[in-house]
Amino acid sequence: MQKNSPGKCIVSHRTLAMPVSPIRGLVPHAEAAVRDGKNVLFLNIGQPDIPTPRVFFDAAASFDDPVLAYGGSHGRPELLEAIVGHYRSDLGVPLEARDVLVTAGGSEALQFAVMLLCDPGDEIIVPEPFYANYAGVCASAQVRIVPVTTRAEEGYHLPHDPSARREALEKAISDRSKAILLSHPGNPTGTVYSHDELQCIVDVALERNLFIIADEVYRDFVYDNVPYESFTSFEDAADRVIIIDSISKRYSACGARIGFLISRNRDIMVHAMKYAQSRGCTAILDQVGAAALYSTPPSFLSGVREEYAARRDILCSTLESIPGATFRRPEGAFYISVRLPVGNASEFAVWTVRECDIDGETILVAPLAGFYSTPGLGTDEIRLCYALERDVLVRAGAILKKAVAAWQKMKVPAS
Amino acid sequence: MQKNSPGKCIVSHRTLAMPVSPIRGLVPHAEAAVRDGKNVLFLNIGQPDIPTPRVFFDAAASFDDPVLAYGGSHGRPELLEAIVGHYRSDLGVPLEARDVLVTAGGSEALQFAVMLLCDPGDEIIVPEPFYANYAGVCASAQVRIVPVTTRAEEGYHLPHDPSARREALEKAISDRSKAILLSHPGNPTGTVYSHDELQCIVDVALERNLFIIADEVYRDFVYDNVPYESFTSFEDAADRVIIIDSISKRYSACGARIGFLISRNRDIMVHAMKYAQSRGCTAILDQVGAAALYSTPPSFLSGVREEYAARRDILCSTLESIPGATFRRPEGAFYISVRLPVGNASEFAVWTVRECDIDGETILVAPLAGFYSTPGLGTDEIRLCYALERDVLVRAGAILKKAVAAWQKMKVPAS
Repeated sequence: MQKNSPGKCIVSHRTLAMPVSPIRGLVPHAEAAVRDGKNVLFLNIGQPDIPTPRVFFDAAASFDDPVLAYGGSHGRPELLEAIVGHYRSDLGVPLEARDVLVTAGGSEALQFAVMLLCDPGDEIIVPEPFYANYAGVCASAQVRIVPVTTRAEEGYHLPHDPSARREALEKAISDRSKAILLSHPGNPTGTVYSHDELQCIVDVALERNLFIIADEVYRDFVYDNVPYESFTSFEDAADRVIIIDSISKRYSACGARIGFLISRNRDIMVHAMKYAQSRGCTAILDQVGAAALYSTPPSFLSGVREEYAARRDILCSTLESIPGATFRRPEGAFYISVRLPVGNASEFAVWTVRECDIDGETILVAPLAGFYSTPGLGTDEIRLCYALERDVLVRAGAILKKAVAAWQKMKVPAS
Repeated sequence: MQKNSPGKCIVSHRTLAMPVSPIRGLVPHAEAAVRDGKNVLFLNIGQPDIPTPRVFFDAAASFDDPVLAYGGSHGRPELLEAIVGHYRSDLGVPLEARDVLVTAGGSEALQFAVMLLCDPGDEIIVPEPFYANYAGVCASAQVRIVPVTTRAEEGYHLPHDPSARREALEKAISDRSKAILLSHPGNPTGTVYSHDELQCIVDVALERNLFIIADEVYRDFVYDNVPYESFTSFEDAADRVIIIDSISKRYSACGARIGFLISRNRDIMVHAMKYAQSRGCTAILDQVGAAALYSTPPSFLSGVREEYAARRDILCSTLESIPGATFRRPEGAFYISVRLPVGNASEFAVWTVRECDIDGETILVAPLAGFYSTPGLGTDEIRLCYALERDVLVRAGAILKKAVAAWQKMKVPAS
């Protein structure tokens, strides 16, 4: 936690408690490397290089109202219709427009969910490592993250043994607990939870009166025919589930900032509307573009999925060849979290981007410590995003391997 | 304040404390009126009908990156350059890009400012009536608004007498006070503060170690050659001033959701970046369009200003002809707040939109009680937005006049 200078306490405690993003925090080092003339491969951020379907741009460009006016706080009707149609036909969920709120990306949907459920001092249970922005959103709302720690060796799954699994969740619950929050597939882990894991989460939530905030923005990216189940499929928990969804990853449209808060709990949605009203509406052209995206043929997503699976395999091959690297091939999303034999992964990440130079190139990776809330965990782990072209990943993997070897030579005394 | 159903406390206290927007809260009544076949004239919301300059749409349409990727959390360089250039050349303020953060409308800038400065239980001093969304933003941050009440009879200015003015502000200060927040020109009042009023606010802020959060989004709309001074012009307070700015009103582009948090206090901007990172970035196409808007020739704004002044005069003429209506011709923005002889203005507003029918038309107005934090104030006042075409305002004024007369006949017993 940062502190105000002595005698000059100008910002709030919640601001001091806000973390610097571990994903974006090292970007200045990368910018310095670029100024040094190096080409930096950005494996730190979940920014796909898949072209955004043209229908987005075409629809936005065909907007022909003379005034770019406010829209309803709820969202534009055609976008609500598109997302409802998607849930009904692709997921079999009997959603209605009133169950959905269009938000400024999944981030705003998460902010709303946390604020809706929690007062300062309340707690949210989150399997760690977790998407680092959860820490920022919870800190700004003064909500405490209570972690359920998962491990690289177990593919970041919940404990395999059913009673140990249940105990791990129950141990985290207190009378301030309001929700269980998780991304599924997992960011930064790529973990796809099994039916038994989901059922355990649902059982505990129902018994202990908790909400489930399910961040399912990577739902479309599950590989190797691993079965994927959405939290929306648990009918008996429908009024306990809040879904965070987004077009950012699904349609490679991160810069549109269009997401969704979805719940079949009517009270939640009525209250959510107050937060939505307090910021007016979501960007109009982007809503128009987003609505058009949902008519993209299914072949687009199957093609992207196939491509990501191939990219994952390329990166995994390299990681397998690094002595001492610990990870399990992830089942979904487009990240790999990996433990590396580098001691301090944060120092390693900074050194790699600043000092490492392989044929004029280097890589930026995200240190994983900022994805844990338990102090001291993740210090030797990093997250790699593989939403980059195959040849880039081949080069990035080679740089990583050489960087680890060079770092070890420099830092780890021969035993 | 709303309550959770007994035994079913599911949402947070901060959520329960969130107000329903008095601007948007009556919209369902208007929708019902539209379903009844009536044409509703929307004087409730600050939605200009001025066409958005085409350069916005042209620039957005010419965006030709194949991937709509995340941008920097700070904002796109060309938009930062445009806003910095505007402040330097039009306001004479030596701004740099690091003094600016691009936000999702002025709303997000305000959220950031409040969170940056205040913890739950802290206080912000606000002249009332104030823009109703201030109440929403402060409630969600659990920050208490301490009002300095102004009155219709005095054109909603601070007290005219210098010592009374200072006392009004000082009386509101406690050891939890963090900032003075105000819109200038005022929403919902149209009030343009004089140099003496601004100087008093600056003096008190400097002496009592408070920030000034100045919402100057209506800065371009000041009429009758009334002098306008921005809070940026107080050089000695530069590190105490946070400006909320936006393209929404200036360029009639409310639906773009592009605003700015501006401060020359370096610490504030460094911490603000953490909030910005936690939501990724602001919509990219809209930033591209917004940057282009700043090249709009000055004749656009002078034309709009002239038009709004004419519209204000039309509405004022009608209001002057309503017996018992109390207001002063506002100097800026595009709102008039007025006290009407209708008893309960909220009931009057609902009745007018639902029951009133003048040649198939009626109006929706915003009751002013939600723009005050002192209970019981503003109950007989409304806000009218005059950012609508002249002939619409002529019809709207006539409807208002007839509605007041009909309501009085129905509700107020003859004396």
